[in-house]
This record gives sequence, structure tokens and C-alpha cells, in this order.
Amino acid sequence: MTSAPEPAAPGPARLAYLGPEGTFTHAAALALGERGTPEPLATVTEVYDAVASGFASTGVVAIESSVEGYVVPSLDAIVAARDVVAVDEVALDISFDAFTHPDATELTEVCAHPHGLAQCAAWIAERGLKPVPASSNAAACRDVEPHQVALGPSLCGDLYGLRTLATAVQDFAGGRTRFLALTRRDVAQAELAAARGAGAVGSWRTMLAITPHVTGPGVLARITAAFGERGVNMSSLITRPLKAQEGTYVFVVTLDGAPWEPHVRTLLEQLLEAGDSLKTLGVFPDRTSSDAVFDDSRVPVASVQRGASPDEAARGLLW
Amino acid sequence: MTSAPEPAAPGPARLAYLGPEGTFTHAAALALGERGTPEPLATVTEVYDAVASGFASTGVVAIESSVEGYVVPSLDAIVAARDVVAVDEVALDISFDAFTHPDATELTEVCAHPHGLAQCAAWIAERGLKPVPASSNAAACRDVEPHQVALGPSLCGDLYGLRTLATAVQDFAGGRTRFLALTRRDVAQAELAAARGAGAVGSWRTMLAITPHVTGPGVLARITAAFGERGVNMSSLITRPLKAQEGTYVFVVTLDGAPWEPHVRTLLEQLLEAGDSLKTLGVFPDRTSSDAVFDDSRVPVASVQRGASPDEAARGLLW
Repeated sequence: MTSAPEPAAPGPARLAYLGPEGTFTHAAALALGERGTPEPLATVTEVYDAVASGFASTGVVAIESSVEGYVVPSLDAIVAARDVVAVDEVALDISFDAFTHPDATELTEVCAHPHGLAQCAAWIAERGLKPVPASSNAAACRDVEPHQVALGPSLCGDLYGLRTLATAVQDFAGGRTRFLALTRRDVAQAELAAARGAGAVGSWRTMLAITPHVTGPGVLARITAAFGERGVNMSSLITRPLKAQEGTYVFVVTLDGAPWEPHVRTLLEQLLEAGDSLKTLGVFPDRTSSDAVFDDSRVPVASVQRGASPDEAARGLLW
Repeated sequence: MTSAPEPAAPGPARLAYLGPEGTFTHAAALALGERGTPEPLATVTEVYDAVASGFASTGVVAIESSVEGYVVPSLDAIVAARDVVAVDEVALDISFDAFTHPDATELTEVCAHPHGLAQCAAWIAERGLKPVPASSNAAACRDVEPHQVALGPSLCGDLYGLRTLATAVQDFAGGRTRFLALTRRDVAQAELAAARGAGAVGSWRTMLAITPHVTGPGVLARITAAFGERGVNMSSLITRPLKAQEGTYVFVVTLDGAPWEPHVRTLLEQLLEAGDSLKTLGVFPDRTSSDAVFDDSRVPVASVQRGASPDEAARGLLW
């Protein structure tokens, strides 16, 4: 792969994703099929390089799981990318099937990515299988041995000619992973301008990296207060340490709105004026549902609520 | 391991940590040696169970890395724990050495935990070694084969009788991991009361789980505004989805102060009054240095700063 930008090859557009074939990222790439023909690459870095160089018009990477949180290497890659931003997102239900080799013997081991092993821990423990980490769930399925169970997306069964031992073996139903569609920054500028002109997108979400230059107490309060003053809602915020700089952070924020909307633009100008460095990491149509219903039974056990007795409060809060 | 609480065994106190021997967590346990004799256990769950049951007086788990962010399974475990809280923390420099088998042959593979492989990616790429994931760096060192390089903490060399091929092979110098010392909640209440009485701790940090019952726009702004009003500084905030509940979150906050200090207590009362569920996850002496100096060269490339030209700003911010 060359590092200098070069035009996309003629013919159908390429959609680069983190392979091998059969990953959940492959399933996300198929869901974004109108953007190009899926092509597996070996590393997140290669996906970013393919987009930056024009080898692929679009890249697909996982960014956040409802069970495991942000995919940190992927988050760090988009924060560090010079020429690549997100222009769309797709969320998939994450469901694991358990597969075996066509010539299976006695089953003693279970193979999957460490995240897959964690998400199916109860099913694994029940069967007394020894967990064996793999570089991806798809690799686990592709390379499954006769004494192993492999865990992966349902598309792995046909793809690798495996037997399906059980379906939906994850501990929690309803886990979802969010994937980003990446393009070159200049392509994104043109695509977003066209979408604004067409007026077809009702509401947007923006992913933003804020690097404060003055660190220490009060930085986070100043930034969140600025969002409050301008009426811009954050749907997610994560602090990431700057590499090898203990005590200094970049804040990665997902906000409701687009950078060109007046209240968002005013907020960004205010943060720049305060001395922060800013970088828009992505702008995409808002596809989140706003009908989440709160389920009391999900509150962490031993939490304290209004009306707790003094003893309960002292025990729960350690005050 | 029994699940019912039972008193600690007579003799020296046990300090349970996530094994096997030779992990960075083992090194952290040795650094907390005055709390007991290190004893390796197989899973984070077993460490929590050992502390909850009284089998061990203290547990040690990794919680946050300056390179990889929060250790999500560990974070979820402390959020979910009924009877276990943190009472101390220790931060270690993370440096990887490269080891080989005493009877090494031609070296074609490199074995480590996926996080270890990620942190040494440049060194691995330079040597053209094939990455092989392991369940831990210590397991990689213990089980290294003659054609493999294993990456791990320096204590693995002596522990497993290996040759040291190279030292400090990580991409970024200065990576640090933070570990928590865990005790039973009732033991923590007594230990903290004694420490307050003795007055030996100058300043504290508190780790808190806040579960808002009303979700949607403005929740994060309301909570951070409450911190601002009461003058309580957050040094870290992360949003974690409630299991299998898309759109609902628990906020895990680290704040400067102790829950019994009047301004912190007033803040907690205000959040309870607003209907949030709260749970103190840990209270520990503040050992962070406040002399972090900001290094401009660490700002993410392509960020926009005050004074940028209109074109630079449009490109960087997509507005």
C-alpha cells in the first residue's frame, strides 16, 4: 500500500473493512453495501491508510459496543487520523453462534476474540470448555480444530462450512455494536455539503475531539458548562489520555447537531477562543432512537436512592 | 470458593490478584505487599469473590491504562459488585521486555495479550513477527515455544527461566497502568473511619457510579453542572451502557475529595434529590501529581486552534 494519496481505481468503489471475512465488521460492511464492494484488510491501520490513499472510497471499523464500551484502538485511530473522518454509522445486534468442525471430536476448548469469550462467559462456564483467545471471531471460526467450539456471527457458518452447535449463546441479549463509515476529509466535506443542499437529513450527530491546553481542576466543568450555555446536548463523553502524558487528556464527545448549525458553531468558536484545540472526527445522520425506557432492575446492585435510611446511605456512599 | 462470607484465615493476610504469576497485576500486588501475601487467582470474578467472602483481605485488579483506557471488564465488575470497594490505588510504569525460550530456534511469532501486542506494534512490525494472542502476557511468557518471542513485564524473565532478547520494546515510553486495592465494604468503612480519625491523609479521591433514572438530552449537562455548582472537580468521567439497555447509561466519575467532606456530601445529596441512584465504588488517598506540563506536540494531528484560517477551520471542523 502506498502512503501517497492516489485516485480510486476505476470500476466499482471499494469498501475496506477489518477482516478476515466473517467478522461483525464484515456484516456491517454488507449493511453499507451501496457504498462499494467489501474488501477485507488485515489491520485498522490498513483500513485508515486505504481510505487516506484513495485505494478505498470508504472504510468500516467498529467504534463502540454496548457491552464492552469504546473500541479503544479504533477510537485512538480516528483521533490520530490526519485525513480520514466518519460520515455515517451503522449499529448491529451482536449475536454469537457456536460452531464446530465438520469432523468434530470430543469438544474441550472454545475459541473466539477475548471480547467474544467475555460476552459468552456463562455458556462457556456451563459446558466446562477451556477458553482459547483468537485474533478475531472470524479467525476462530476459519481455523477451528475438531476438538474446539468457535464463536462468531451467524454468517461464519456458511462462509467456513461449519456445523451450528447452538445459536445466540451470548450472556445478554440485545448487545449492539456501532460501526463507522470512513471517508477522506475532502470527500466528506463535499458529501456533507451535498447532503445539506438536498436537505434530506433531518438531524445530525457530530463526533468531536477537544484537547484543552490548560489542564487541571475545572477543565471538564468549563467544557460541559459551555455545552449547557449553548444548548448543545452531549450524548457521550470519554476522556482519553494523550499518549505518554499522564494527567493530560483529549475529550471525545458525541453531540446532537452538525458543526455548521449556528448554536454548535458558536460553541466551537467559544471553545477555540478559550484556547482548546478542536477536531471534528465525524458528522453523520442521527439514527438513534429516542424511545429508550428506563428499567429500574438495571441499576447497579447496592446503589443508594432518594429516601434511603442513614445506614444504607453511609454503607453505599461511604460518607 | 464459597459464596457465603467467612472470616479471613488465620496467619498472614491474603492479597488476591489476577494471575498467573508474572502479570503487571502481580507487580502491583508486590507494591501493595504490606497488605498481605500475594496469591494468584484465575479470573477477575474470583478476585472479587475472594474479597467478598473474606478468603482474601485485599484484592488487586487493573482499572485503567494510559494507553488503552479503562479496563472495561474490571470497571464493570466494580460497578456491579455488591460488597467490594476500592480503598487504595497504585500506578506502575508499563514496560515490556521481549523474552525467548532457552532453546530458541528461528523466531517467527510473537505472543502476548492483545493489549501487549498493540502496545509493541512497531517493534513487532519491524521484525516481521506474526502476532499470536494470549490470555495474558504472563501466560505468553510461561508457555513460550522455541519459535516464539513472548512479551511481558521484566519479572517474567527470572520467574519462567527465559532469555531476554530486548528490553522496553513498547511503542511509547511512559505508559502507566493504575490498579485498585479492593476490600469488603464493611472493612472499608472501618479503614476509612480510622484514617479520618488519624488525619494522616491530606487529600482523597472518590470513584462514584451515578445512574440517572431520567434519560435523554441534558442529563450529562445537569450532572456536570451540579459538580460545578458545588465546586467538586471531576478528574475523569466515562459513560457505560447499562447491560442490554441501549440509550441508558451509568456514569463512572472520579472526583477530587471524599464523600464525607461537606461540599461533596452536599453534591451527593443534590443528585439523590434529583432522582439519581448513586454508589461509591472507592475512596483512596490522592497520589496523583498535579505538575503535569502540557506538551503541544501531543495534540491530535489536524486539530484546529484559535487563529486558524477560515479554510483550515472548515476543513478541520467540517462546518
